[in-house]
Amino acid sequence: MNLVTLEDIQAAADLIKGTAVRTPLLPCPWTAPDRPLWLKPENLQPIGAFKIRGAYHAVARLTDERRARGVVAYSSGNHAQAVAYAAKLFDIPAWIVLPEDTPRVKIEATRAHGAEVVLVAVGQREVRAHEITEQRGATLIPPFDHPDVIAGQGTIGLEIIADLPDVDLVLAPVSGGGLISGIAAAVKALRPATQVWAVEPELAADTAASLAAGELVSWPVADRNRTIADGLRSQPSALTFAHQRALVDGIVTVSEDEIRRAVAEIAHRANLVAEPSGAVATAGYLYRADELPKGRTVAVVSGGNLEPATLAELLATR
Amino acid sequence: MNLVTLEDIQAAADLIKGTAVRTPLLPCPWTAPDRPLWLKPENLQPIGAFKIRGAYHAVARLTDERRARGVVAYSSGNHAQAVAYAAKLFDIPAWIVLPEDTPRVKIEATRAHGAEVVLVAVGQREVRAHEITEQRGATLIPPFDHPDVIAGQGTIGLEIIADLPDVDLVLAPVSGGGLISGIAAAVKALRPATQVWAVEPELAADTAASLAAGELVSWPVADRNRTIADGLRSQPSALTFAHQRALVDGIVTVSEDEIRRAVAEIAHRANLVAEPSGAVATAGYLYRADELPKGRTVAVVSGGNLEPATLAELLATR
Repeated sequence: MNLVTLEDIQAAADLIKGTAVRTPLLPCPWTAPDRPLWLKPENLQPIGAFKIRGAYHAVARLTDERRARGVVAYSSGNHAQAVAYAAKLFDIPAWIVLPEDTPRVKIEATRAHGAEVVLVAVGQREVRAHEITEQRGATLIPPFDHPDVIAGQGTIGLEIIADLPDVDLVLAPVSGGGLISGIAAAVKALRPATQVWAVEPELAADTAASLAAGELVSWPVADRNRTIADGLRSQPSALTFAHQRALVDGIVTVSEDEIRRAVAEIAHRANLVAEPSGAVATAGYLYRADELPKGRTVAVVSGGNLEPATLAELLATR
Repeated sequence: MNLVTLEDIQAAADLIKGTAVRTPLLPCPWTAPDRPLWLKPENLQPIGAFKIRGAYHAVARLTDERRARGVVAYSSGNHAQAVAYAAKLFDIPAWIVLPEDTPRVKIEATRAHGAEVVLVAVGQREVRAHEITEQRGATLIPPFDHPDVIAGQGTIGLEIIADLPDVDLVLAPVSGGGLISGIAAAVKALRPATQVWAVEPELAADTAASLAAGELVSWPVADRNRTIADGLRSQPSALTFAHQRALVDGIVTVSEDEIRRAVAEIAHRANLVAEPSGAVATAGYLYRADELPKGRTVAVVSGGNLEPATLAELLATR
């Protein structure tokens, strides 16, 4: 299987320039000298998550004629907003298929970008999205299972190496695997000695199980939906799993309590609002030190879209 | 009176490179097309506020011999952390004089940087700080009344113009005036057509009164201390007021309720934790549209250090 290349990711960086924010690395002086931490705040992207990189890149790569007929997406939320936002920038129609239990804040944000939101029962998203593409002649933009999406997310890896060339360890959350696949493809090509580790909620640890088994292991959707990290309830595709087997050095899992505490720590120490999914990599750094390599560490804060009431609750219960 | 020049600020930018984070401008797609907003997130600096720019620059400009004898600061909190952090980076002693009512989070953060914290009654800070400089031979780093401090804060203006050359309006909070003076010196030198406006809490509106009167008008400290924006309770010096009279285009004031609501809006829409003082410029944008010029607007989010319980309360009461 062909993996995304450094050249693919460098080309993506040119295409998304000016649309995705060039996020800085934020030093965290409160961390230990033998494993100093920098945060990569992707929650500061225009749609509040890294997903704008891959989604905009995939839409930008369509031919003018094909793009004009519109785009379709199904996702747990942030990818939907990213596709809707990209469609608005290109002035094309967008249909977004979301599960009924999607947080309200994400549904409203998607509509605010001018997209048509289609709510369906859990598990019915893919079927309905494909129906719409056939009816409308629009193009499906998948949340992770596409080389253009992976290459877009990989631009995060380029920026990490540019800003901190001697980074020892990069931590990113894993779910469908587009983010960690792209980052690993960039980082390992530029600096093979840097370790790239995935962090996953214990309650949706299908990727940890798959990497241990050496093949894709499926978890029931009802099991994966238990985690508060609502952006991390998907499973890898064959394409993203191939990237992970080839390029990812290890994986750790974190508990629900650790994810909640990490949201509060990131808010109070780094002044960033992270959604639970966005706090998972930092939770790995904070609470799995014994399982991780030491050295200069970057944790990707992948998103920050959560209900105001949930945020207030997580901060109050620190 | 000599004002800080563009050359001073450009030299400061060279000295603070690698210590202060090069913060991006964050586009806010939820704002109106006739006055689109970008946030300049200075709450993401290593000490959680823009103050690192001026403090580090002032310490860096000392001779080696003088710097080795240590530095002293008195401030409402963020400047103290900035001087303590700069002293740690240079491996020199630091004495920080703080009022007894300083938020605990700021006192602890200052001590965590290795500085000695000296708590005194409100209004006694300056006297005690000068005593220490005489006893120790250390150098006082003032929070705003010094050209090196103003030049350091001015690097924010350089970055705004570099990232958004056609910006129409820059909004920054005002208190002692180091921040707005530096920003205005940079912006007006590079692009005179850009408007620079100050935003101030109604309950500590001595600068608005002074600009209206054409001379410095003093408010009693007990009055200024009423605002929740605890970083904005100081008054301009002759030096910073001279910059403001020469370079600042206008000033608006905001209510306590508007400051509180802006903290919540910034958290929920931009995924940033701002302290009340840090939310004041954005409050001006959100709630004083009728009094401000239209066009492409940048609001400086100047800091993010607040008590966890206060943050939870502000977010819950949105």
